[in-house]
Amino acid sequence: MHAYRSHTCADLNKSNVGDTVRLSGWVHRVRDHGGVLFIDLRDHYGITQLICDGDSPVFAEVEKLRSEWCIRIDGSVKARDESLVNTKIPTGGIEVYIRDLEVLGAAKELPLMVFGDQEYPEETRLRYRYLDLRRENMQRNMALRSDVVASIRKRMWDKAFREYQTPIITASSPEGARDFLVPSRLHPGKFYALPQAPQQFKQLIMVSGYDKYFQIAPCFRDEDPRADRSPTDFYQLDMEMSFVTQQDVFDTISPVIGGIFEEFGGGRRVDDPAQWPQISYKDAALKYGTDKPDLRNPIEMQVVSEHFKGSGFAIFAKILEQDGTEIRAIPAPTGGSRKFCDRMNAFAQKEGLPGMGYIFWRDKDGEVEAAGPLAKNIGPERTEAIRQQLGLGVGDAAFFLGGKPKSFEAVAGRARTVIGDELGLTDKDRFAFAWIVDFPIYEKDEETGAIDFEHNPFSMPQGGMAALEGDPLDVRGYQYDLACNGYELVSGAIRNHKPEIMFKAFEIAGYGHDEVEKRFGGMVNAFQYGAPPHGGCAAGIDRIVMLLADEANIREVIMFPMNQRAEDLMMGAPSEPMNEQLRELRLRVLPPEA
Amino acid sequence: MHAYRSHTCADLNKSNVGDTVRLSGWVHRVRDHGGVLFIDLRDHYGITQLICDGDSPVFAEVEKLRSEWCIRIDGSVKARDESLVNTKIPTGGIEVYIRDLEVLGAAKELPLMVFGDQEYPEETRLRYRYLDLRRENMQRNMALRSDVVASIRKRMWDKAFREYQTPIITASSPEGARDFLVPSRLHPGKFYALPQAPQQFKQLIMVSGYDKYFQIAPCFRDEDPRADRSPTDFYQLDMEMSFVTQQDVFDTISPVIGGIFEEFGGGRRVDDPAQWPQISYKDAALKYGTDKPDLRNPIEMQVVSEHFKGSGFAIFAKILEQDGTEIRAIPAPTGGSRKFCDRMNAFAQKEGLPGMGYIFWRDKDGEVEAAGPLAKNIGPERTEAIRQQLGLGVGDAAFFLGGKPKSFEAVAGRARTVIGDELGLTDKDRFAFAWIVDFPIYEKDEETGAIDFEHNPFSMPQGGMAALEGDPLDVRGYQYDLACNGYELVSGAIRNHKPEIMFKAFEIAGYGHDEVEKRFGGMVNAFQYGAPPHGGCAAGIDRIVMLLADEANIREVIMFPMNQRAEDLMMGAPSEPMNEQLRELRLRVLPPEA
Repeated sequence: MHAYRSHTCADLNKSNVGDTVRLSGWVHRVRDHGGVLFIDLRDHYGITQLICDGDSPVFAEVEKLRSEWCIRIDGSVKARDESLVNTKIPTGGIEVYIRDLEVLGAAKELPLMVFGDQEYPEETRLRYRYLDLRRENMQRNMALRSDVVASIRKRMWDKAFREYQTPIITASSPEGARDFLVPSRLHPGKFYALPQAPQQFKQLIMVSGYDKYFQIAPCFRDEDPRADRSPTDFYQLDMEMSFVTQQDVFDTISPVIGGIFEEFGGGRRVDDPAQWPQISYKDAALKYGTDKPDLRNPIEMQVVSEHFKGSGFAIFAKILEQDGTEIRAIPAPTGGSRKFCDRMNAFAQKEGLPGMGYIFWRDKDGEVEAAGPLAKNIGPERTEAIRQQLGLGVGDAAFFLGGKPKSFEAVAGRARTVIGDELGLTDKDRFAFAWIVDFPIYEKDEETGAIDFEHNPFSMPQGGMAALEGDPLDVRGYQYDLACNGYELVSGAIRNHKPEIMFKAFEIAGYGHDEVEKRFGGMVNAFQYGAPPHGGCAAGIDRIVMLLADEANIREVIMFPMNQRAEDLMMGAPSEPMNEQLRELRLRVLPPEA
Repeated sequence: MHAYRSHTCADLNKSNVGDTVRLSGWVHRVRDHGGVLFIDLRDHYGITQLICDGDSPVFAEVEKLRSEWCIRIDGSVKARDESLVNTKIPTGGIEVYIRDLEVLGAAKELPLMVFGDQEYPEETRLRYRYLDLRRENMQRNMALRSDVVASIRKRMWDKAFREYQTPIITASSPEGARDFLVPSRLHPGKFYALPQAPQQFKQLIMVSGYDKYFQIAPCFRDEDPRADRSPTDFYQLDMEMSFVTQQDVFDTISPVIGGIFEEFGGGRRVDDPAQWPQISYKDAALKYGTDKPDLRNPIEMQVVSEHFKGSGFAIFAKILEQDGTEIRAIPAPTGGSRKFCDRMNAFAQKEGLPGMGYIFWRDKDGEVEAAGPLAKNIGPERTEAIRQQLGLGVGDAAFFLGGKPKSFEAVAGRARTVIGDELGLTDKDRFAFAWIVDFPIYEKDEETGAIDFEHNPFSMPQGGMAALEGDPLDVRGYQYDLACNGYELVSGAIRNHKPEIMFKAFEIAGYGHDEVEKRFGGMVNAFQYGAPPHGGCAAGIDRIVMLLADEANIREVIMFPMNQRAEDLMMGAPSEPMNEQLRELRLRVLPPEA
């Protein structure tokens, strides 16, 4: 017989009754029923019930077992009494009578119980991660993550992509965040950087003629802590293709992402990838107040400025006298009660706005009646016109925000979310996707008036060189995001592969020729040797797994995460270096405030 | 029609004759046959011949094309004249007459030609890697590497292993080499380290109850440069299993490795993984002079001390009077000529030994005659006994080395290799594997006499605690390597999962309890909470691909390698950091010799 097991803890069933078996695993829990010991033995695959009484030659040793001891037992398989059969687990029809026992690894008193649902502080969970990881939820999440990544790879291979590994110790890849630096011993005083993303390398792979690249790529950003983000590294599905248009990228990656959600979504409805809408950045801001809309929520905001121009509602009428202002409505089907409307008004105030005007419609003697202060101010005609535009009726409401869109858009977006949630309009059993397209290439710093790149500087402007001759703020890029349930899952672009357009694009953002050569020399040089048109995207693995596992904290889907202070309490990182290491690197650590 | 291509450059054949097609790719080469231009258009998939003459509306533009320009053409498919058909490529039956042309990316004068076999200095190749990577050999090597890694993953999944990602920014994992350090911004003065291997993490995964782990893992070692090793990072197939014996690990990984060599070996013979021999470390040293023997070479060395004891060959006779000495023979079938024997003697001298005695056997009137000075010294009886022991005959030779085995073993091993090669005994069309087992746990420093770990300190000693009570140098570990064609492909062990045995093992090597807690705290703590027996191994991906691609330089199988000075000339790494970066990290770079 094998030294440790003839079966796993998920294998045995009634067909094994009478067999002599060997099992290894952890003592999940022990129950003492008056001289008869019941032990749930757990391994990675399942749980088998062990039983032992005074007749067993090892009863005295079995009595000493405690939770989470790792043991090996030999025993004989017995059928459980019909009344004791557990139909929830595959081994629920049998139990194993212990005849021999070996303690493989004893356990000290546990700082964290594996059995049960007790919650522990995150610091405890991370310090004793090896115990935390034994818990059922973590086992499930880790398996899910592994299976998702495996499935992504298979799907990309099926589409004739090859995975190529790009360097991890390399030069800085300016993506807007802080680099992690790595001091060089062979070149003291010089530093490598860990890549924020393989952006330049994947573009170089295209210039190298490899056509279809992907990588499950570790990315490194020295970020300040946040619950939904790792403070050090994260993984992307990174992909790039040559000789493609934006639509080709969508057609390639949509079924991969959609397929993953179908496969691992646990039956939740997944929008058909061939039908994912493409929504312009501008429309997304208007209708959803965000560039990562949650389309499970059916509410779409509308511009209703016309109805307020010169109206009796002085605040909005005044606002509309200024340039660039608008009044927008958030329809709230079934939200037609004063109580709900007042609650939403309070929400807007909490978000820093003066409040949200509203109208709601009720039944009065079989007629639709508009209620609320706003309706009174603008009168029945305008109110009715608004109702008709928004397609609302009795029992519904609408909320109104006005000003320069930038000043209220984000709050409007959040209000839309709250309204959808509170009124039960948002379908929680669904993954809803949308491609957000036509991102502006540039944005203006409201304070300094300076023009800078809105996103990364590598996207091809729509209209090419000619577009760069006009107003920079009008230039749209072949640049896109995939939104899912209110999160940005994927981000990408058709790249600017023409050196002259690239230099021009940088010039507009205030970067001279030399600066571009210095910062992106590797890539810019390469573009002068026959660069193909190319584009691609990157999808956040951690985010995908979080959505599938329905977890809000990224540390629930990473095996050994840092805590929020970027420390690994289990391994003791970061730590003081040895003097010799610093000497070899020719570095000195300065005292605080030096 | 698609913006860039209706077909790839490998798609078209006679069935497309008459079609209007669109192709994109690079100008591989241009030939001007007196007003008729022939262009080989190349993409990732193949080459298609384009043709253009004065009748084409774009002839003038086509005339301007140069090598490595990236272009898009429209044209019509024509059958080639029978005499011009190229049967070596799938598109060899057709050519495409150019009717429209778009230059997608022009190229400056090339520092490196993609077409042809010209060799370039490595610095040029790395600086213009995006051109170098377009060359046929690199395209093949990169595809091979990608396909090997993909196949490894599939094979591991088939064996019910899951891939789990371990941290890259973490604590030092003392594996004997230098760590790369990463300064922490949030904790100035403290440093992370990049993992030399996921050793501790994979063991923690076992303690966490995951049973079967693998990872294609990046590993980081700040090594001094060597041709066959990357100075910064490399990839391992890293795997670990719980509740297993050494044989289980072999049974799991052998078919994976063997299968890869079958799949990608290009028809070279691969030893059946079920038949790979297990050779003890001690026997390997004796028979092959190395712990990574090349078993394609049939030569096995033997101890022949008895024949020289008290013999007329005074040097060996003297040597044998000392303790711990031996005489070993390297049989050299078909090496029986004075010329060859003298050459091998010179080889040994070049390797720093005084020389290598030899005997060779020739035919004298139908009898076997032993020749060479050594034969004369020891006389015909001993010579004949040696011949019989080694199973040699007319036309063969044998070489002899004496002393303490450590002093000559390595040279003997190299001599065995040279003999096998020069005599054509080594079967170059074969991948020959052997598991080397029973490695000693400890070694003695010849100078200081101190006992230290021979390999990594995590292996389980055979015999457990009891074995550690005796002579440390006698302790063998459940520790193993897989050798293939003279290289170490895989290395692994059954781990020491019992804290008390681990502390004892470290104590023998001079590491106190506190030191162990400090250096391996994460793992040692974990072992006190129910650790399962476990073991595994790691296989070098770069090495496997090098063997399959028949390349001697690791940079031929890595897409963007560092040069031997650990610089990336294309991206400019390492480089001077910005002052602000150093300030945030609270670091100062010291002047040389400070």
